Amino acid sequence: MIKVGIVGGTGYTGVELLRLLARHPQVELKAITSRKEAGMPVAEMFPNLRGRVALAFSTPEEAGLDSCDVVFFATPNGVAMQQTRALLDAGVKVIDLAADFRIKDIAVWEKWYKMEHACPDLVAEAVYGLPEINRDRIKGARLIANPGCYPTAVQLGFLPLLEAGVVDPGFLVADAKSGVSGAGRKPETHILFAEAADNFKAYAVGGHRHWPEIKQGLEIFSGGPVGFTFVPHLTPLIRGIHATLYAKIGKDIDLQALFEQRYAGEAFVDVLPSGAHPETRSVRGANTCRIAVHRPQGSDTVVVLSVIDNLVKGAAGQAVQNMNLLFGLPEDMALADIGMLP
Amino acid sequence: MIKVGIVGGTGYTGVELLRLLARHPQVELKAITSRKEAGMPVAEMFPNLRGRVALAFSTPEEAGLDSCDVVFFATPNGVAMQQTRALLDAGVKVIDLAADFRIKDIAVWEKWYKMEHACPDLVAEAVYGLPEINRDRIKGARLIANPGCYPTAVQLGFLPLLEAGVVDPGFLVADAKSGVSGAGRKPETHILFAEAADNFKAYAVGGHRHWPEIKQGLEIFSGGPVGFTFVPHLTPLIRGIHATLYAKIGKDIDLQALFEQRYAGEAFVDVLPSGAHPETRSVRGANTCRIAVHRPQGSDTVVVLSVIDNLVKGAAGQAVQNMNLLFGLPEDMALADIGMLP
Amino acid sequence: MIKVGIVGGTGYTGVELLRLLARHPQVELKAITSRKEAGMPVAEMFPNLRGRVALAFSTPEEAGLDSCDVVFFATPNGVAMQQTRALLDAGVKVIDLAADFRIKDIAVWEKWYKMEHACPDLVAEAVYGLPEINRDRIKGARLIANPGCYPTAVQLGFLPLLEAGVVDPGFLVADAKSGVSGAGRKPETHILFAEAADNFKAYAVGGHRHWPEIKQGLEIFSGGPVGFTFVPHLTPLIRGIHATLYAKIGKDIDLQALFEQRYAGEAFVDVLPSGAHPETRSVRGANTCRIAVHRPQGSDTVVVLSVIDNLVKGAAGQAVQNMNLLFGLPEDMALADIGMLP
Amino acid sequence: MIKVGIVGGTGYTGVELLRLLARHPQVELKAITSRKEAGMPVAEMFPNLRGRVALAFSTPEEAGLDSCDVVFFATPNGVAMQQTRALLDAGVKVIDLAADFRIKDIAVWEKWYKMEHACPDLVAEAVYGLPEINRDRIKGARLIANPGCYPTAVQLGFLPLLEAGVVDPGFLVADAKSGVSGAGRKPETHILFAEAADNFKAYAVGGHRHWPEIKQGLEIFSGGPVGFTFVPHLTPLIRGIHATLYAKIGKDIDLQALFEQRYAGEAFVDVLPSGAHPETRSVRGANTCRIAVHRPQGSDTVVVLSVIDNLVKGAAGQAVQNMNLLFGLPEDMALADIGMLP
Repeated sequence: MIKVGIVGGTGYTGVELLRLLARHPQVELKAITSRKEAGMPVAEMFPNLRGRVALAFSTPEEAGLDSCDVVFFATPNGVAMQQTRALLDAGVKVIDLAADFRIKDIAVWEKWYKMEHACPDLVAEAVYGLPEINRDRIKGARLIANPGCYPTAVQLGFLPLLEAGVVDPGFLVADAKSGVSGAGRKPETHILFAEAADNFKAYAVGGHRHWPEIKQGLEIFSGGPVGFTFVPHLTPLIRGIHATLYAKIGKDIDLQALFEQRYAGEAFVDVLPSGAHPETRSVRGANTCRIAVHRPQGSDTVVVLSVIDNLVKGAAGQAVQNMNLLFGLPEDMALADIGMLP
Repeated sequence: MIKVGIVGGTGYTGVELLRLLARHPQVELKAITSRKEAGMPVAEMFPNLRGRVALAFSTPEEAGLDSCDVVFFATPNGVAMQQTRALLDAGVKVIDLAADFRIKDIAVWEKWYKMEHACPDLVAEAVYGLPEINRDRIKGARLIANPGCYPTAVQLGFLPLLEAGVVDPGFLVADAKSGVSGAGRKPETHILFAEAADNFKAYAVGGHRHWPEIKQGLEIFSGGPVGFTFVPHLTPLIRGIHATLYAKIGKDIDLQALFEQRYAGEAFVDVLPSGAHPETRSVRGANTCRIAVHRPQGSDTVVVLSVIDNLVKGAAGQAVQNMNLLFGLPEDMALADIGMLP
Repeated sequence: MIKVGIVGGTGYTGVELLRLLARHPQVELKAITSRKEAGMPVAEMFPNLRGRVALAFSTPEEAGLDSCDVVFFATPNGVAMQQTRALLDAGVKVIDLAADFRIKDIAVWEKWYKMEHACPDLVAEAVYGLPEINRDRIKGARLIANPGCYPTAVQLGFLPLLEAGVVDPGFLVADAKSGVSGAGRKPETHILFAEAADNFKAYAVGGHRHWPEIKQGLEIFSGGPVGFTFVPHLTPLIRGIHATLYAKIGKDIDLQALFEQRYAGEAFVDVLPSGAHPETRSVRGANTCRIAVHRPQGSDTVVVLSVIDNLVKGAAGQAVQNMNLLFGLPEDMALADIGMLP
Repeated sequence: MIKVGIVGGTGYTGVELLRLLARHPQVELKAITSRKEAGMPVAEMFPNLRGRVALAFSTPEEAGLDSCDVVFFATPNGVAMQQTRALLDAGVKVIDLAADFRIKDIAVWEKWYKMEHACPDLVAEAVYGLPEINRDRIKGARLIANPGCYPTAVQLGFLPLLEAGVVDPGFLVADAKSGVSGAGRKPETHILFAEAADNFKAYAVGGHRHWPEIKQGLEIFSGGPVGFTFVPHLTPLIRGIHATLYAKIGKDIDLQALFEQRYAGEAFVDVLPSGAHPETRSVRGANTCRIAVHRPQGSDTVVVLSVIDNLVKGAAGQAVQNMNLLFGLPEDMALADIGMLP
């Protein structure tokens, strides 16, 4: 059994990790920390867990994290980088669901996250946890930077096009729409029900922290600089991301075949038949990314549609997938949930 | 392996049965029928099932239902009663998720369902599939009448009070609220998104078909006639029923203890601590009924709050629970989903 | 022109007052206060007001409220009672949309609102602003206690029954459902979109502040003590209250005629035809209460369905209606909005 | 008083026309037709109109449309073109809210709408009713082709850029999101609440009927051919369209000033301050288009955000605006509703 600790379990990625790990046959949940809620049973805060998770929140001091096999950080940005070195030194593997280890260029990270990085050397060591790209490196890693939600949907959508060099890397557009759980569980006015329901808006058009993360990935796939525009929107879903991607085709190839071949054998990427439109609900609660590729009106513009559940393939599910890889387990263990429709 | 057939798989109870049965380790899905959609892969209609259910819809003639071990009817009312006798004669067990076998008084059934009953003798044989009441009888049955969604939530909420004789059976009120999936997948104007979203209304106050079904149960629990008012409402949820029950207390006892004792050992009924308010989302996708009991302001009125997922404990989940009982399997097999929150 | 000031304009009742008053032909908006946001144009916080309301928030000191003709308090409980005497002394009429002047029994108020009342004598003077009951007294008042949202829907529903003495006053039940805007605009976890969407729950079953307010009204209508149970629920609407009321009939009369006669001539109470079910969306944005009365299955239980928009007839609209009465204007001036459907 | 008839009043554009026209001081509603519902009071189908619209649906034969001053067609495509000539001959002005007269190239129209056009000469005469472009021509017209919902939002967003020639017309992208009321009130499975709530999807990526309509407009603005990609999405709103537009900047000018100058003096187009993000709810129920223009990360990509209420500025409100122009009334008469927020 893998002994698991979770740091920061009071947000949505925390409760989603618990929902998934509680049914994982090789996992023993050892601790979940929240300094503020220490002593409260997690099932009191998250009543869906009643009868299924007996743990109470504990303080970091009491949690005994250094005797775990793996620790997940489901914390705000900037927390994991303070505690990771000690855990690694104690032989604990670390999976950070926040952004501390995602961006290799420290200056870029510090600019976007507005703080000094505590351990640039560990950034260099960390493996970006997108298994469809880095599966082998993940297996041997100590430290995983779990990708952001938008970056997962957008990168998986652009990947085959850029790897194959069939689109102009100078003009890539990602118009992305996220459910409100992506904004977290901390109370803020703009995500109140009476503000966000029956409403649709773009936000952060001037600059979103996932832009440099995605750009870094696209440049790796492309092997050179890219021109990339990213516009995120808030839509009245609880869960779900829909990324609509636009690029100019440079080479005339069978796009459907390109996508199907790239993702053949991937358990968690489903390329839909030609002409299809993936729906976010088809992956609600599931660790699947569904993708469709279109070329409207026979033009030279390719449109890719990519959907995930932001809390599963976009966060906790992908983290468990990475854990499975780290410990040599079947990659899909405890990730067999079928999307909840309706 | 249990060979399973489903008749009428294009509605919400059908797709929910598939979601649950696809992961059932003792089930082999043999056939799912839809005359209209024969030939279409079910995963084309319900894309959440892509890669998980390979079946296509078949006509009833091709389906080979009489070689199944059990057949679920997820059909409109009046269909199962036409086909059940032949299946039972062929040694197939039948679980009807519609209403054909729920009401023992044929005259009452015919009045509310506005058709002649095809097999009154089988109504007499059928066991009402509420395991918390009829567990032993279910185990030995051939034919299960799976309870309605409102009846499940309301009966489980009133059961301890009426069995113990602590409330006035002459004035029972159930104010029930249902998500829109309870109205089915057949397109009708009043359940369009633009009609049902951001809207709340009562319906069928003059008379709803679940009223006689619930009344029949309450009279069994009470051992005599009851006065029962039932007001259903449509609320902008996809899934979920919340029943708020009112009764007058006749005997002064510890209500919390009464409920906890009645449901001790029940895997799928969770009595919340005193003072709590169950939320429908805590059981979203789960086969659980959560109940809280209140006595506001120390008055002589008891208020019971009872929530279920109408498609799980209120339909497909309870049907699988009944199937597990019919075949001597652990009652909770393939029913371990944790409520999806958020 | 009536010079109007608003104290506390950053919540939902504040913006709704502005939406209504901006089109009122006899109103000149003089000031809207918010100490925290002083200097910010209100249209920056509430972009629906762009081009329609030029005011900026001001501090109470700068606002010049004592030169207004009327001041609305759209503040948390306990604010209006501190400032009302000075305004009245300056000849300004006051309409409090909070609860400071609603409950005549000071001890009851202090128990439920957990503070000492600053001016019990003004409570005695204040007129409860439900025009359908107190129209004449409102016309001559200086100080209006604008009713709560639940109290408006529930009292208008029970009023004809209790005035006519046709139901047992000892067992009245109000099962009420509110949209989330009723909880205000202050960020709190349980009203986040990802918590409140696709979810339904009761709350405060043990005791809600609107219980004593409603009870006070019901006892006036009834002319004696009542037994009253009140269970509020949160439902995923932005706006809207649906109250479902239950009582036992003592006298056999034509209930439909009773309601129609009681509300004949009322501009803002619409009694639906027999057998109808009012929908909250039919009054979305409108100052109307729609009511239907039922007697299910010919039993001795009467069921009343009453819907309002909690921000209009349940708050800002009723406040404007009261202002119109106070100043001798047509009662429906600037309240002609038709419910927005869909 | 202008005598008004409406053909086809049982859909959402029909009820919205009634909501707006019922409060228009210069309008007398003469008839609203529905062969199927003839005899039913409109307020029975749309209870928000109770007490405000006394009309019942009538058959076209009884309606006396040729004695009206203006007739609105709120019908499916292909109806207006059958009846318009007779009305024009009778001296009645016609405003078609469907697509019959929007596209000048008959062959294109017939290809996309899959029927033969009944009166190509009237297409030539018809004026495209986007007042911000065609105000003067509308004033003198007999026949108005009221623009589609997506076309209104998209064209108003691209207009200043293309008129000024500052973007590459060869690569224009409109990623548009619509509320579900845009799909109409006819019951279809994919717009059921349980299908469309908590779900997001693109649709018709291969080709949508609004594509040629928008393209026609963009080519007029641009003065030559354009390359235009249009991807519509369904989002869980009742009302609202959000268009996110992408283009490559060719000329380095002050985009904010460009937009402000182009729309100076327009009552129904509101250019937001630099850096802002318009929300659909800010125009809910209002006849306003709000626009913001961005240039993210200083790149050469311009992003325009454009929101409308699809039933108001995208349909019925714009139709009333056109009627006001046709009859020499103030353009904003009866269009003063402020967006309903929250």
